[in-house]
Amino acid sequence: MTRKPKKDEKIILVVNDDSVFAPGIKALVEAAMPFGRVVVVAPDQPQSGMGHAITINKPLRLEKVNLVDGVEAFTTNGTPVDCVKLAVDKILHRKPDICLSGINHGANHSINVIYSGTMSAAMEASIESIPSVGFSLLDYRMTADFEPSKKIVSTIVAEILRHKKVDKHLLLNVNIPSIPYEKIKGIKVCKQAYAKYEEKFMQRSDPHGKKYYWLTGEFKNFDKAKDSDVWALENNYVSVVPVQFDLTNYTIKKQLENWKF
Amino acid sequence: MTRKPKKDEKIILVVNDDSVFAPGIKALVEAAMPFGRVVVVAPDQPQSGMGHAITINKPLRLEKVNLVDGVEAFTTNGTPVDCVKLAVDKILHRKPDICLSGINHGANHSINVIYSGTMSAAMEASIESIPSVGFSLLDYRMTADFEPSKKIVSTIVAEILRHKKVDKHLLLNVNIPSIPYEKIKGIKVCKQAYAKYEEKFMQRSDPHGKKYYWLTGEFKNFDKAKDSDVWALENNYVSVVPVQFDLTNYTIKKQLENWKF
Repeated sequence: MTRKPKKDEKIILVVNDDSVFAPGIKALVEAAMPFGRVVVVAPDQPQSGMGHAITINKPLRLEKVNLVDGVEAFTTNGTPVDCVKLAVDKILHRKPDICLSGINHGANHSINVIYSGTMSAAMEASIESIPSVGFSLLDYRMTADFEPSKKIVSTIVAEILRHKKVDKHLLLNVNIPSIPYEKIKGIKVCKQAYAKYEEKFMQRSDPHGKKYYWLTGEFKNFDKAKDSDVWALENNYVSVVPVQFDLTNYTIKKQLENWKF
Repeated sequence: MTRKPKKDEKIILVVNDDSVFAPGIKALVEAAMPFGRVVVVAPDQPQSGMGHAITINKPLRLEKVNLVDGVEAFTTNGTPVDCVKLAVDKILHRKPDICLSGINHGANHSINVIYSGTMSAAMEASIESIPSVGFSLLDYRMTADFEPSKKIVSTIVAEILRHKKVDKHLLLNVNIPSIPYEKIKGIKVCKQAYAKYEEKFMQRSDPHGKKYYWLTGEFKNFDKAKDSDVWALENNYVSVVPVQFDLTNYTIKKQLENWKF
């Protein structure tokens, strides 16, 4: 199904959640190509807000598609997390050297990391001991300019590959402000801000008089720290948050040991 | 839409991911009822493996259903996370005092916490500053015996409510072994085990000769620690893991500060 890699050639798995047809993934592939053999597996339709969903109860399909010349690309009816699983088991038959997810159309900073299909795909790779990065551009539009982002991808991937020994579960959440490249002040290592959407549902009535609800929400930052990703982005930095999949709250664990269960 | 609560009466929101028709949610409601006014919002169909998915691109419906006498219950076409958001904004018009999710049919220990709709719904409540618990029984069957689990729910909810001041983001992942109540050795505060599924896709051909794939997997525990949830469950304890939604890996954050981005 795939050609043999050249000796010492890095295998770079590219996935996303906006579908194989989103401009963001094309930009990511182009930025990744100088670093090795790029293989793409992406959903056949947008999967934003899918979180860490996996497909258990229906069969998955896998189709070859043309995306960028010289790059193998596949599309599936599965979720972003499924893409990683399928790539390792059915396409590469081994783990890639690095997994890149995105470039997402829209922010995945702060609490968005847990809703994001882009970050969940990257996290799936990290669980599988594949160093992994999720990239997001703070511009939702299909016409967003990904040129500055491509330079950021290039810088970050080069720095990861320069380190011979990185943590095998390395997982970075990279958000890029939507400004010209020369206005970007730098790349800042951050923590996840405590910022979230204050959600409301808009209530409407359908033509049959039955109520229905649309999710809407206003973004609010409750975090005043200057090392948060939201702070960095507001100040024209690229934010890089190292992410973990051990969700244990060790502080509360210690407190609970005195409880009387 | 709802009756007024009595003075000082606790409001207990019950959600799940197995749908409002699953036996597990009925057991949870019955166990919760002695503690206050129970309100149920649950998906109208099973949503296992939905992770932290939210519904952005389609309208949501909300229907009143009969579940247990004296308990208001609603069903929606949304995800488990949507259930929490809808409950707060459209049903309760305030935050409940506690949110209980489950009882899930099947385990949500170790890495399952990130795939689990049950835990994602509980996490959504925690983000919204509602103390929250996800309960799971290690028995997938619809005919599972939830009686021992009801006693565990009762013990844990009582202990949370006994503490006048709990962390407003308190979030517990409770897994219950599928054994008779008298065989349960106790309730153990644990960390999330590094244990996961070694996944494979089974390849088949459809009647038209086209390939498709089913996700299958073997569970493997890589964690030797005796305070892990997997260890506790294997040794007939109920596991309680306090969970956080700040996914920042602070150890790696420190290391990355020396990188040259």
